[in-house]
Amino acid sequence: MTHPLPALVNGRPDALISPADRGLAYGDGVFRTLPVIDGKPQVWALHYQKLSTDCSRLSLSCPSASDLLQDIQHLYADQASGVAKIIISRGAGGRGYAINPEVASTRIVMRTAMPQYPEHYAETGVQLTLCSLRLAHQPKLAGIKHLNRLENVLARMEWQDPEIFDGILLDQQGFAVEGTMSNILLRFGSRLLTPDLRNCGVAGVTRDRILQLASSLGLQAGIADISLEQMMRADEIIVCNSLFGAWQATQFNGKTWQPQKLAEQLKYLLQEQHEID
Amino acid sequence: MTHPLPALVNGRPDALISPADRGLAYGDGVFRTLPVIDGKPQVWALHYQKLSTDCSRLSLSCPSASDLLQDIQHLYADQASGVAKIIISRGAGGRGYAINPEVASTRIVMRTAMPQYPEHYAETGVQLTLCSLRLAHQPKLAGIKHLNRLENVLARMEWQDPEIFDGILLDQQGFAVEGTMSNILLRFGSRLLTPDLRNCGVAGVTRDRILQLASSLGLQAGIADISLEQMMRADEIIVCNSLFGAWQATQFNGKTWQPQKLAEQLKYLLQEQHEID
Repeated sequence: MTHPLPALVNGRPDALISPADRGLAYGDGVFRTLPVIDGKPQVWALHYQKLSTDCSRLSLSCPSASDLLQDIQHLYADQASGVAKIIISRGAGGRGYAINPEVASTRIVMRTAMPQYPEHYAETGVQLTLCSLRLAHQPKLAGIKHLNRLENVLARMEWQDPEIFDGILLDQQGFAVEGTMSNILLRFGSRLLTPDLRNCGVAGVTRDRILQLASSLGLQAGIADISLEQMMRADEIIVCNSLFGAWQATQFNGKTWQPQKLAEQLKYLLQEQHEID
Repeated sequence: MTHPLPALVNGRPDALISPADRGLAYGDGVFRTLPVIDGKPQVWALHYQKLSTDCSRLSLSCPSASDLLQDIQHLYADQASGVAKIIISRGAGGRGYAINPEVASTRIVMRTAMPQYPEHYAETGVQLTLCSLRLAHQPKLAGIKHLNRLENVLARMEWQDPEIFDGILLDQQGFAVEGTMSNILLRFGSRLLTPDLRNCGVAGVTRDRILQLASSLGLQAGIADISLEQMMRADEIIVCNSLFGAWQATQFNGKTWQPQKLAEQLKYLLQEQHEID
């Protein structure tokens, strides 16, 4: 099958995947999605650190940063801007679920276009919906950006309205966890809280960066269990991921918030930090 | 990448998978593993029915039975015996988690060798271990043989001893659910119970068949929540799947059971039913 996207598999251009790859068979692998600007992957050190930690939690051998950087440079030799998606799977081998430790992992890097979002998102904020699917608790997988994402796929099927930017997922105890493709942060006065991800959810790089940056805005950052009711009482709801940075959610679950300044400030600080990197 | 196994992708020999396939990206698909004897897939009607039901639960378009049968016949044109593994993924398309309904699913059929198990399994039974990983509750995915199998992979990493045939998984409330690659049935006197899979687990074809066959052995079959403590009090523990049929577990969690006759009777009935099909 010819695939439509520029991609490298184990460094080879236009290579394809074995039908026996465990990434396909079992979702046995991890991934990352990061922006590339003028040929340069953004916040690379933190993305590689997360990739390495996620691999380690699954006992998956992580490719070297230099191999991955070389792949990204190869795909972005034109110094253009876009997205780099990295997938590390456990490769093709082992019988059934048992792992053959001699099989090398498969390293996939793909180049895709940067998603184009409406400009008004930055001014008037985005609209979120509440998903009915509840995330399962699995502490052994919680936080990892792994390839078992059927919960996200099913949750994303719950709405068709193109005005809705993302859907909020609660866990099975009713605590708010994240969006299907974003993390969330909630401001209560001078406190900026993000849900605890010990049981489920993906701990994104931008969430970590915002937790670090919060003090420079006079905010005390923290991690907590946050019920839907508490979330509805937040002064501001921020959604974030590596591709769009941070936006305020101004409509969610029947309530409207006035546009405020935090998302813009965070976006500026996230951008400034890029440039220091 | 050249793959080592005879495989058809959308009916084409030796085709490979796009790195952008959602089966790889998200585990967005389902699978089945079934024996092929002298070129003929076994218990095909029930396997196709399950495949179709699983696809439907994920809103995935299921290929026709005739296309799949043609693939299997192509791979087993030599009338040999082995295993057919079918994977149906949502294909390559859609942006992020959102589905593009115009993208056709990917149909993969692979031929592999039948696993060779020691002959004494049928006489003296098999040994099971108790996994520490607890299965998460996700009713929207429970019962489906989907491609999100990291729990099974992590559970299978828990033992190396080749004498151990499978590991028993409990759910997060402590109820017994299944083995990593088998279903379980427990005999208490004249009752044959199998765990309820409304919250997690894979509902295999052989489990269904045994529930149907039980009455012909004078057993009352049923589905129930079964704690580990109850499981330890069973008169017989049976593990089953489509490849090996049924075996008695004679060692589990520090206890030994005497070899009895139920597994052999079940195996005979399962085999006999094949021939009627």
